[in-house]
Amino acid sequence: MTAKTTTAAAPQTFRAIDVIRKKRDGQELSRAEIEGLVDAYTNAEIPDYQVSAWLMAVVLRGMTRPETAALTDAMLHSGEVLDLSSLPAKKVDKHSTGGVGDKTSLVLAPLAAAAGVAVPMISGRGLGHTGGTLDKLEAIPGFNVNLPVGKFRRVLETCGCAMIGQTAEIAPADRKLYALRDVTGTVESPYLICASIMSKKLAEGIDALVLDVKTGSGAFMKNEKDAAFLAELMVETGERMGKQVVALITDMDQPLGNMIGNALEVVECVEILRGAGPQDLRELCLELAGWMLYLGGASKSVVEGKQQSASLISSGHALEKFRQMIELQGGDPHVIDDAKHLPQAQHSTQVASAKSGFIASMQCEQIGTACVILGGGRERKEDSVDPAVGIVLHKKVGDKVSAGEPLATIHYNSESKAQRARQLIESSVEVAAAAPAKRPLIHKVIGKQR
Amino acid sequence: MTAKTTTAAAPQTFRAIDVIRKKRDGQELSRAEIEGLVDAYTNAEIPDYQVSAWLMAVVLRGMTRPETAALTDAMLHSGEVLDLSSLPAKKVDKHSTGGVGDKTSLVLAPLAAAAGVAVPMISGRGLGHTGGTLDKLEAIPGFNVNLPVGKFRRVLETCGCAMIGQTAEIAPADRKLYALRDVTGTVESPYLICASIMSKKLAEGIDALVLDVKTGSGAFMKNEKDAAFLAELMVETGERMGKQVVALITDMDQPLGNMIGNALEVVECVEILRGAGPQDLRELCLELAGWMLYLGGASKSVVEGKQQSASLISSGHALEKFRQMIELQGGDPHVIDDAKHLPQAQHSTQVASAKSGFIASMQCEQIGTACVILGGGRERKEDSVDPAVGIVLHKKVGDKVSAGEPLATIHYNSESKAQRARQLIESSVEVAAAAPAKRPLIHKVIGKQR
Repeated sequence: MTAKTTTAAAPQTFRAIDVIRKKRDGQELSRAEIEGLVDAYTNAEIPDYQVSAWLMAVVLRGMTRPETAALTDAMLHSGEVLDLSSLPAKKVDKHSTGGVGDKTSLVLAPLAAAAGVAVPMISGRGLGHTGGTLDKLEAIPGFNVNLPVGKFRRVLETCGCAMIGQTAEIAPADRKLYALRDVTGTVESPYLICASIMSKKLAEGIDALVLDVKTGSGAFMKNEKDAAFLAELMVETGERMGKQVVALITDMDQPLGNMIGNALEVVECVEILRGAGPQDLRELCLELAGWMLYLGGASKSVVEGKQQSASLISSGHALEKFRQMIELQGGDPHVIDDAKHLPQAQHSTQVASAKSGFIASMQCEQIGTACVILGGGRERKEDSVDPAVGIVLHKKVGDKVSAGEPLATIHYNSESKAQRARQLIESSVEVAAAAPAKRPLIHKVIGKQR
Repeated sequence: MTAKTTTAAAPQTFRAIDVIRKKRDGQELSRAEIEGLVDAYTNAEIPDYQVSAWLMAVVLRGMTRPETAALTDAMLHSGEVLDLSSLPAKKVDKHSTGGVGDKTSLVLAPLAAAAGVAVPMISGRGLGHTGGTLDKLEAIPGFNVNLPVGKFRRVLETCGCAMIGQTAEIAPADRKLYALRDVTGTVESPYLICASIMSKKLAEGIDALVLDVKTGSGAFMKNEKDAAFLAELMVETGERMGKQVVALITDMDQPLGNMIGNALEVVECVEILRGAGPQDLRELCLELAGWMLYLGGASKSVVEGKQQSASLISSGHALEKFRQMIELQGGDPHVIDDAKHLPQAQHSTQVASAKSGFIASMQCEQIGTACVILGGGRERKEDSVDPAVGIVLHKKVGDKVSAGEPLATIHYNSESKAQRARQLIESSVEVAAAAPAKRPLIHKVIGKQR
């Protein structure tokens, strides 16, 4: 008796059930069906339980490229799409899929702006083991990431870059869908991840987008194949929507740079903008900036864009642009001149190496988690972050180390949290007799723009 | 930024999200995990949207036999399980997966009871194109299918059979899950169908169960392979729970018997119990009764059970048992003596064959739908049924027919509905020059009890 009710019981108006069944059975949905579902959900015309069943069907059945583009488009147009056509400069943004010590946005926005490219950057917060740009910016006393759209536009017009958080007007369908995915085991789908990222980014009114897709032990996509699949999906989706998109698959098998933690990462970004700082972070920033300048029409090639970016750092123009943006967004620009103007942790302690040899590997996610435990990230969405705490690495993968030599310094405000972080760091660093094979920083570049 | 929130946001107590993810990833759930989910849902501790995501994962990933048994068990124990151990007779029930003109329950309950087997039958209503036992019983004026459990037990003790609808106490998890499946495209899973059927049937406190799994154009499982898979699943699940279970895969490629419609089907059942009636219906009733008597310990073999059943019909004992049950459940027993005591449709009209030849096939689901359109079934759960309307077939598959000869008579109360039903019947019957190959009535028997 159970099986007989299939056809008769669903409502007659918008038949969400038909769209669910079609995806369940592995068929391709039409643009109208996808739009119907997204619109009905955004307007609360269909319940969560139908959408979560559909989301699970998408996770397990996948989507075609036209379906992915249609979903992205429907989510994008569920809210406001910024019209920045009055700005003469090309608008280019960069998006990272998230990592540990992944702080390039704070360098890239002012750097590309210094080259004449407009960077309207809407970012997120850290969650899980990874950091978030908004949390880093908020380590700067007074910095306001919640600008209304009008003010955001004025900052952008004045200094060429502006950095805010997602507003209620941008892609509301994504906010609603993401909250549902988070509690229904439907986060892990490249199609849904692509639509979520691209709908928010394209709502910024950009012409071009540089994607930094992370791979390795500290990334969401642990293996390069998955990272490349997501990257290709995002590039093709962006191109279908008339944007120039390129994706760099970059290494996240160890933290990027030496500093992890919100205020510490601001310090490291200022170092890079001064022409100093760790080699890997500088290299990635120049590579990504090279692409932003090239796609933004500020250079004839990526190589030229990198060279120009290096010059803008040497000349101090990029750092001045950062200072200008901080001022325009209400932040204290003295943080650039002296790190003491940033929040400082009360205590610090060193983690020493137990043996001599070479750093063979780091469990990068564990190091990110150690920073979260210190209070530098969120275990739940509603948690607040402590901007002062964090980890400074003294050794990176491939470095030689002697027993007793410091591997890292923990900056902390709670003894018990520092103990837990220490254990995680100790267990995450592997010391071996021989130096490991070097992993490249840039694994692959994906996109027609090459 | 989208992908990073996986681990941190879910609640810490019962982690439905972990169970969803595990099934999504194709892993086997433990008994404790399945029980946790079913209990939490029954007690409204987890929301519909998590359960619907899990259900879709089950539809697409399937379940192992232990998982299916654990789900059945958890659903069974979500409510009351009847204890009929005070009745000395063995308790045996029959369950059909649903069809058109599928009326054997009304024959089998009194027939098996006349042989000394106790039949505590809890049935369902029609929905979709198929009929339901409760609707048929309610065509008998006064018949009460909503007996409280105490009264149900007394009827059973007095006459050996009793037929009621599902009470609020029986398998509440199934009622809640089924309502959710119905609106989330998650009905079509043999594992979920099995757990739904078996949890309700085993709640009846039975010792043995005969399953009539339909296959063909009027069945839910259109092909025999799917029907056999479901049958094996139900048999194994029942056996894992200590019951004797056998499943017959039987034909539903054309309606069973000649009459479709609630009062009409009561008439045809009385005919069978009088030793008359159509051959296919009589044959299936005797086959199923043979199994019920054998599993119920009333006969030494199925063949002997069939013979004994035929005798109980010839002697009038089975019909008297039906009369007794009708009286005990408040119905008018005169319906047995004269069909005029049953509701009568105001009008009737004949559907004639357009050409001469042999009935090659009938689109059985369409004929069921024609009866629903007349008002004999429900298009939505909340619809009421008209007991009087229906269809009487004058020809079955393989019969010779001349142009103009009546194929069927429509009994109706609405001219426009009769027109729609006529069109459906006309288009569902195919007449060809040659007689088709005969399909067997019993395709297969599944179960260790053979």
